[in-house]
Amino acid sequence: MTHVTRRALLGGAGLLLGAVSTAGAAPAIGPATAPPTPTPTPTPKDFPYEQHLKPDYRLDAAAVREAAYQAYYAGGCCHGAYSALLGDLAQRAGAPFDQLPLDFGKFGAGGIATYGSVCGAALGGVLVVNMVVANAQARGAMMTDLLRWYEGTAFPAYVPKAKHAKEAAGVTLDFSPAAIVKLQRAPRSHLCHASVSDWCAANGVAASSPDKLARCARLTADVAGKTAEVLNAYLAARAYTAAPPDAESAGCVACHTAATTTESVATGMRCDACHDRHDAT
Amino acid sequence: MTHVTRRALLGGAGLLLGAVSTAGAAPAIGPATAPPTPTPTPTPKDFPYEQHLKPDYRLDAAAVREAAYQAYYAGGCCHGAYSALLGDLAQRAGAPFDQLPLDFGKFGAGGIATYGSVCGAALGGVLVVNMVVANAQARGAMMTDLLRWYEGTAFPAYVPKAKHAKEAAGVTLDFSPAAIVKLQRAPRSHLCHASVSDWCAANGVAASSPDKLARCARLTADVAGKTAEVLNAYLAARAYTAAPPDAESAGCVACHTAATTTESVATGMRCDACHDRHDAT
Repeated sequence: MTHVTRRALLGGAGLLLGAVSTAGAAPAIGPATAPPTPTPTPTPKDFPYEQHLKPDYRLDAAAVREAAYQAYYAGGCCHGAYSALLGDLAQRAGAPFDQLPLDFGKFGAGGIATYGSVCGAALGGVLVVNMVVANAQARGAMMTDLLRWYEGTAFPAYVPKAKHAKEAAGVTLDFSPAAIVKLQRAPRSHLCHASVSDWCAANGVAASSPDKLARCARLTADVAGKTAEVLNAYLAARAYTAAPPDAESAGCVACHTAATTTESVATGMRCDACHDRHDAT
Repeated sequence: MTHVTRRALLGGAGLLLGAVSTAGAAPAIGPATAPPTPTPTPTPKDFPYEQHLKPDYRLDAAAVREAAYQAYYAGGCCHGAYSALLGDLAQRAGAPFDQLPLDFGKFGAGGIATYGSVCGAALGGVLVVNMVVANAQARGAMMTDLLRWYEGTAFPAYVPKAKHAKEAAGVTLDFSPAAIVKLQRAPRSHLCHASVSDWCAANGVAASSPDKLARCARLTADVAGKTAEVLNAYLAARAYTAAPPDAESAGCVACHTAATTTESVATGMRCDACHDRHDAT
């Protein structure tokens, strides 16, 4: 299947008009103009997909945030972020993004099938970054930055334009613009289990409560929006550098390097999510 | 683009023969036989992809293991597992698997861009399970089972048919069939960082060493093969039930439920990967 671009179509129309205007005349002398080759539609196999984006394409981060919040209630955190980001690309950039299933991210809810692993919203963002970015070094830096940002950011922050109907019943905490800051916690871990348990304990609610859902719906918007911003920064510069780790973790891995044979460590995550300081034990 | 199946082709040939044999005769009386509609080729959007597999399709787990081991050295653990599993589906089941990029999993190396998060081999397996399985409950159970199996399994176990050329230099440990058992450790955590650091410390090698690469290449084969077996079990029964958590973790979440408002927990992972027992603190 081929897709005729606007340029090819105009070129073809011009040739057609030329043919009509010279109908019946002698063939023109000179080099023959070959008909334009139709540009094939990009397919999912033409990966990564940055090559198919126009130079000025940027994601609409505000729209992505609202879409992610709404989609959370249709399939969880990973689906919220993934479908909002891919939806923007599919609707505004077209192929091959519009040839991919928007429902692919539902598996990631609750840190992969409720396992409590990597936050599904962050995983959804990672999957879309991976889809787009061709430069492997920049791609890795963007993923590192997204996960590090997640660990250190006070969630939730997003205030939806329209509350989802499923949020009507059972929410006891005040998520209004004026009060949401009082509910915020920086999770310090990029893992769903640690992030959710810490937030629920601090706010006195259960992990299965409507309050937790309201929190994670807004966090999903926050993470999807941040992913859009990270992607836009890359698309503007075609390069990306990750922020450094927190000072304490940088201190840990100064001794616990990947090259030592004693307690060797290779990670980008915060150490204090699971480990006490030496001087605290 | 459409794809004519063997059945449609035979049907069409039959119609054509019929037309030839009655050439010149009066039109037959009775209901007209409509020409068979060509079966469209499944596309990546026709998700999930279980619907496109023949009832007797099963992955070749032994071939997947070897392919995963070899591919590890071309793009890391997630690429190894993902490309081996997807490669089997693309080569032996066809569309839409053959329309997807085999390189999609490279981002997952070292627990997502070397972040030390979820083991990339496990993530590669999870992504392919997600691609195939339509039943959301079974899909979640399969992912839970895969991650739980990972935490409790002594790695590495696989002995490659042919050692990869990149393994020649710098490997100091004995990965031979007779000796590999001495190198094995059950990681207790599904996170790359914990899994790698524990194994390296136990074997006195560095996280950046060729020994670690040799270990993770074999672990990638183990995880990809297990994923193939989990998928085959599902494809045979069209249902799947996860194994229960370890007894200690089951004890933890008996009090730390998702419904309590005090230290609420929603996870499927082993608790003792990060937490001490109450009676040990």
